[in-house]
Amino acid sequence: MLVVMKPSASSEDVRRVCQKIESLGFRPHPIPGAQRTAIGITGNPGPIEPLEFESLPGVAEAIRVSKPYKLVSREVKAEDSRISVGGPGAQVVFGGPDLPVIAGPCAIESRDQAMRAAESVARAGATLFRGGAFKPRTSPYSFQGMGEEGLKILAEVRRAFGLLIVTETIDPENCDLVEQYTDVLQVGARNMQNFSLLKRVGRSKRPVLLKRGLSATLEELLMAAEYILSEGNYNVILCERGVRTFSDHSRNTLDLSVIPAVKRLSHLPIIVDPSHGTGKREKVLPLSRAAVAVGADGLIIEVHPEPDKALSDGYQSLDPSQFEELMAEVTAIAGVLGRTTVRSTPAQVLNAGGGTHVAPV
Amino acid sequence: MLVVMKPSASSEDVRRVCQKIESLGFRPHPIPGAQRTAIGITGNPGPIEPLEFESLPGVAEAIRVSKPYKLVSREVKAEDSRISVGGPGAQVVFGGPDLPVIAGPCAIESRDQAMRAAESVARAGATLFRGGAFKPRTSPYSFQGMGEEGLKILAEVRRAFGLLIVTETIDPENCDLVEQYTDVLQVGARNMQNFSLLKRVGRSKRPVLLKRGLSATLEELLMAAEYILSEGNYNVILCERGVRTFSDHSRNTLDLSVIPAVKRLSHLPIIVDPSHGTGKREKVLPLSRAAVAVGADGLIIEVHPEPDKALSDGYQSLDPSQFEELMAEVTAIAGVLGRTTVRSTPAQVLNAGGGTHVAPV
Amino acid sequence: MLVVMKPSASSEDVRRVCQKIESLGFRPHPIPGAQRTAIGITGNPGPIEPLEFESLPGVAEAIRVSKPYKLVSREVKAEDSRISVGGPGAQVVFGGPDLPVIAGPCAIESRDQAMRAAESVARAGATLFRGGAFKPRTSPYSFQGMGEEGLKILAEVRRAFGLLIVTETIDPENCDLVEQYTDVLQVGARNMQNFSLLKRVGRSKRPVLLKRGLSATLEELLMAAEYILSEGNYNVILCERGVRTFSDHSRNTLDLSVIPAVKRLSHLPIIVDPSHGTGKREKVLPLSRAAVAVGADGLIIEVHPEPDKALSDGYQSLDPSQFEELMAEVTAIAGVLGRTTVRSTPAQVLNAGGGTHVAPV
Amino acid sequence: MLVVMKPSASSEDVRRVCQKIESLGFRPHPIPGAQRTAIGITGNPGPIEPLEFESLPGVAEAIRVSKPYKLVSREVKAEDSRISVGGPGAQVVFGGPDLPVIAGPCAIESRDQAMRAAESVARAGATLFRGGAFKPRTSPYSFQGMGEEGLKILAEVRRAFGLLIVTETIDPENCDLVEQYTDVLQVGARNMQNFSLLKRVGRSKRPVLLKRGLSATLEELLMAAEYILSEGNYNVILCERGVRTFSDHSRNTLDLSVIPAVKRLSHLPIIVDPSHGTGKREKVLPLSRAAVAVGADGLIIEVHPEPDKALSDGYQSLDPSQFEELMAEVTAIAGVLGRTTVRSTPAQVLNAGGGTHVAPV
Repeated sequence: MLVVMKPSASSEDVRRVCQKIESLGFRPHPIPGAQRTAIGITGNPGPIEPLEFESLPGVAEAIRVSKPYKLVSREVKAEDSRISVGGPGAQVVFGGPDLPVIAGPCAIESRDQAMRAAESVARAGATLFRGGAFKPRTSPYSFQGMGEEGLKILAEVRRAFGLLIVTETIDPENCDLVEQYTDVLQVGARNMQNFSLLKRVGRSKRPVLLKRGLSATLEELLMAAEYILSEGNYNVILCERGVRTFSDHSRNTLDLSVIPAVKRLSHLPIIVDPSHGTGKREKVLPLSRAAVAVGADGLIIEVHPEPDKALSDGYQSLDPSQFEELMAEVTAIAGVLGRTTVRSTPAQVLNAGGGTHVAPV
Repeated sequence: MLVVMKPSASSEDVRRVCQKIESLGFRPHPIPGAQRTAIGITGNPGPIEPLEFESLPGVAEAIRVSKPYKLVSREVKAEDSRISVGGPGAQVVFGGPDLPVIAGPCAIESRDQAMRAAESVARAGATLFRGGAFKPRTSPYSFQGMGEEGLKILAEVRRAFGLLIVTETIDPENCDLVEQYTDVLQVGARNMQNFSLLKRVGRSKRPVLLKRGLSATLEELLMAAEYILSEGNYNVILCERGVRTFSDHSRNTLDLSVIPAVKRLSHLPIIVDPSHGTGKREKVLPLSRAAVAVGADGLIIEVHPEPDKALSDGYQSLDPSQFEELMAEVTAIAGVLGRTTVRSTPAQVLNAGGGTHVAPV
Repeated sequence: MLVVMKPSASSEDVRRVCQKIESLGFRPHPIPGAQRTAIGITGNPGPIEPLEFESLPGVAEAIRVSKPYKLVSREVKAEDSRISVGGPGAQVVFGGPDLPVIAGPCAIESRDQAMRAAESVARAGATLFRGGAFKPRTSPYSFQGMGEEGLKILAEVRRAFGLLIVTETIDPENCDLVEQYTDVLQVGARNMQNFSLLKRVGRSKRPVLLKRGLSATLEELLMAAEYILSEGNYNVILCERGVRTFSDHSRNTLDLSVIPAVKRLSHLPIIVDPSHGTGKREKVLPLSRAAVAVGADGLIIEVHPEPDKALSDGYQSLDPSQFEELMAEVTAIAGVLGRTTVRSTPAQVLNAGGGTHVAPV
Repeated sequence: MLVVMKPSASSEDVRRVCQKIESLGFRPHPIPGAQRTAIGITGNPGPIEPLEFESLPGVAEAIRVSKPYKLVSREVKAEDSRISVGGPGAQVVFGGPDLPVIAGPCAIESRDQAMRAAESVARAGATLFRGGAFKPRTSPYSFQGMGEEGLKILAEVRRAFGLLIVTETIDPENCDLVEQYTDVLQVGARNMQNFSLLKRVGRSKRPVLLKRGLSATLEELLMAAEYILSEGNYNVILCERGVRTFSDHSRNTLDLSVIPAVKRLSHLPIIVDPSHGTGKREKVLPLSRAAVAVGADGLIIEVHPEPDKALSDGYQSLDPSQFEELMAEVTAIAGVLGRTTVRSTPAQVLNAGGGTHVAPV
């Protein structure tokens, strides 16, 4: 059920509807929109009578939501969500005309490696920096990341280059630490249905980058996002990163058709990770072009100053010059669609960079 | 094994190498290239000694081919193959800078439907017309196509609009009939490993459009093409049309990463069918953009004058105005890659159209 | 639509209903059952009025069939079909209490290899012999089978050991030849949707072993069988042989849950091929036990006198002693389910063997 | 690397080898076997020189381990691991000749539902009781389990019926609570690569039931188990519960061929969950028979006193009489393989039941 308020409704009207919902034992989710506020209702085991709400002041209508996901649904919010990352002066927006590119190494391996990677991706036009400090690895004997030391290096990257930081959190307790350092909390593909973690990031103030699981259906991806929104965090960016199939010429099968499918059902932005999606360096560039052409709201790309020396994912990482070429090509494709990959005022942001701190959680 | 001739080698030199190969009980496949001729050797159970050939006049070197596919491999032919369709004055080339678009209905249902579809796709810039006269259908009780009558309508489409014809052949005997009418023989996804049919079209003079099977690996696709080339027909155009996975938001999962993978391993051109690849009308346009951006050599699109009345595949067919929009968008994307979707001299071709007959087989 | 006749209906009654169906432009399929005859109607684009038939003499009722498949459906025929193979005195029945085992090499490689294989499988209790004379191979350069010479060897195996013959036919024209030699026509997995071949074997007098395609859904498998039945051949044995998935520890993923699923929807028998289903010798025995335990109506097993010298599929073929062990174990499992793998009167059959000729087509 | 001690080696010898390993900066994992102790070495980035160890007293040999998993590998431990559950007098063993059956509802819904379910499964011969108190659900709005109250009901089930308890833990913090109540900690399929949870249960004293992920390869399953063993908990029971494929006649595709594949590579026991593996009630019985026939070391079955009223998974739950039938049939199949599903001394255990408390963690 969704209660849609009139454009003229007052905040008092909204409050009154929320009280009514709570009095029935359900949970209200006010969703402010450009024109009007809508209030999602969850926690109801069955249908609710619309008339219960339509007689309240300021209510335009109460509509039933047909999908198992509610808050992420276009039925509940027709216009695209724009997810802002970073504070004033260093803001990047996903879901609008801009097409931000996140780039950086799979894992933070050292201060030197991170700074060299950051310098190269900032120069090429990336506005966010990726790099894992806590790495979920298939083997317990593989490099598991530098931990908090890695997070501190990421904070230094933010200060030095004005790049916003995207890094992965791997469990609820770990999230307490990671959210102090990062601008965007990443939930990895293997954790897409780690519901304890989803609930925890749903209570964070940071935007969340939610990667599609290796064998997740579209509905499961949207339900995972619903977990986050249902806890109150509406700033979710979805990410397609390839699914597991019989096909063996790439590490995963990048499912670009999920982009228009998400756009149809949900108001959330969705970006593409062609590095994990293909697992092979020589496919990252063409699939990045395709991702932008299909309508993705951004890209996340693995870039390493020396891919052949990477401790993880080297075979799918670009070197700085390959990334420059990628930025040039995807910017050209984005232009055809009336979008741009580069921040409007890069100079200012870089100047402001020195003083950019992550906002308190 | 591949015997590479010197640029200066005479046709007599080539003939002598072929005789030598035959005398050893193997089969020679001379492959003339822009600079030099190469001669593939098949039928050998194990390795052959290169020295057997390197001492013959005109031979530059004899190299071992490491892949199970030989004639389709880039090891054997480094430069891209350009597959010409149609006779002089109405020629379309796959694999070069042009990016031809094949369009038309799933099945030929009537003369009127075909002519209306053809008129609209020709106007929008398609250079080839698709339409099934023999339809492989999952159910024996579904419409199986108009048969030869459908082929005659296709011939009329060629005369009226100067469009080259692509239609499916479903078994070796049927091929005798279909090749008299069509410019390109299509082998459908379900027949990708119908080896009797592959051998038959390998003996045809017509170029072949070979669609990837629903669960075919890249190697299997290339081996299916190898069947055709090994019978002497080097004019094969591959086609990605989606593979079968668990993912349920689209009918199939379009595997665009196979395009750069094919380009790496083979000299053959590959096009994309986003209509079958997604199975949903609203996804055809964005995935067409993506296919061109990833580097496909062409598109094949289902267009029906009235999709809701189509006897098959209506839900994935575009109407004429949607197809016009598609042509505009993919032409813009192609431009970024330095390619063009439209034939260089449309006027001439249309004038020539009235007199274009399919060349005798 | 299905017209169910009363037990007391005369053949004249049946004939009259068929005429009525034909007069409406549809096609009647009389299906004689143990208790009564039913008549399937196909070729009708939409629903037919039951009253058209229920007033005719001898008609019990006319019922609508809800599935896209008709003749293979349990709605149309509630009792299990029993498919008899071989003439009087050498008969084997699929779909009843017996659990016949088909065994032999992937391909007939020589008279000696075939006779040695046949001797060993007959001794261990197999009642049918498999062996390919025409082999659909992924590569055009692989051994394609001995052709008609191989068929002649199979005929000799029948005479020498009283084993019934199962061999593959690869296209409609080839079927003319193969059906003269074989007791059961096999349609391979890659040809499951080769509709020209399905129609051709549907007009044969021989029972058909129809293998599930590598990525065929259950509905597609049943529709493929429907093609055969709709042409008049009701003797179809289905076969599960593994499907293609991401799982890489076996060549294919044997989908044993399809056995109870088929039993629920169709009256046709279904057997299991654990050799192709797993692709690894050491898995054939445990999966054979599982196949019998789940309720399969038979097994088809690759056995080679010297697996390491096999020209194809050696790594998944059992040697004679492994096959003996398999027969012992599956016979024990079958016993728990009240079934038996061995023919009731082996001695007689073997005696009769010398004179057993394949019945004229 | 694995250091194999002589049968005559003293515990002092073992201690000395461990010290040597630690002095090199690596981690020793002593694995006591029936005949001799072996010591796994992990944490080494590259190969170690065997001679470093072979000269130490008590060392038989030092062997390289070729697989990415070490402690779970048969290379490291050749004999089957037997995992004991429960204290003296109520012990059940996985991995030996017995074939324990775990049964109970998907979720604990009430004391009454749990006690009725427990009574019926104990009577039919199950020795362990399953039931979720914390439920990972696709939707945030679905029933998430009774929490600690559910755990208390499970403890009551143990006391009342002498059944050992298997219940799921969903995150590291939650594990602190669950391990106080349960005999076996279950890690669900969606958490198979929740590495934080794997490390936590690896530090628990309770045996762990580790379910295969929906798209996990065999290697990934073994690596997940390796996480648990590498933390010191060697009591891991693997579980096949179906994988996600294109096949749509069952909820998942039960991959029974993984059972012999695990047996070949690992010493750990593996059981089968045909309830989730098929998702359909009518398939649970035949697939249970098949699982036992293929060689599984146990079963886990969903049983509900009134399946149609279940809050979750009702369509795949058996009712008590169906479960009785299942026990009878799988016991018969197990007998053919020389195994038994029932505990040797059920009476004693039931008598002892009243006083059985879970051992302190």
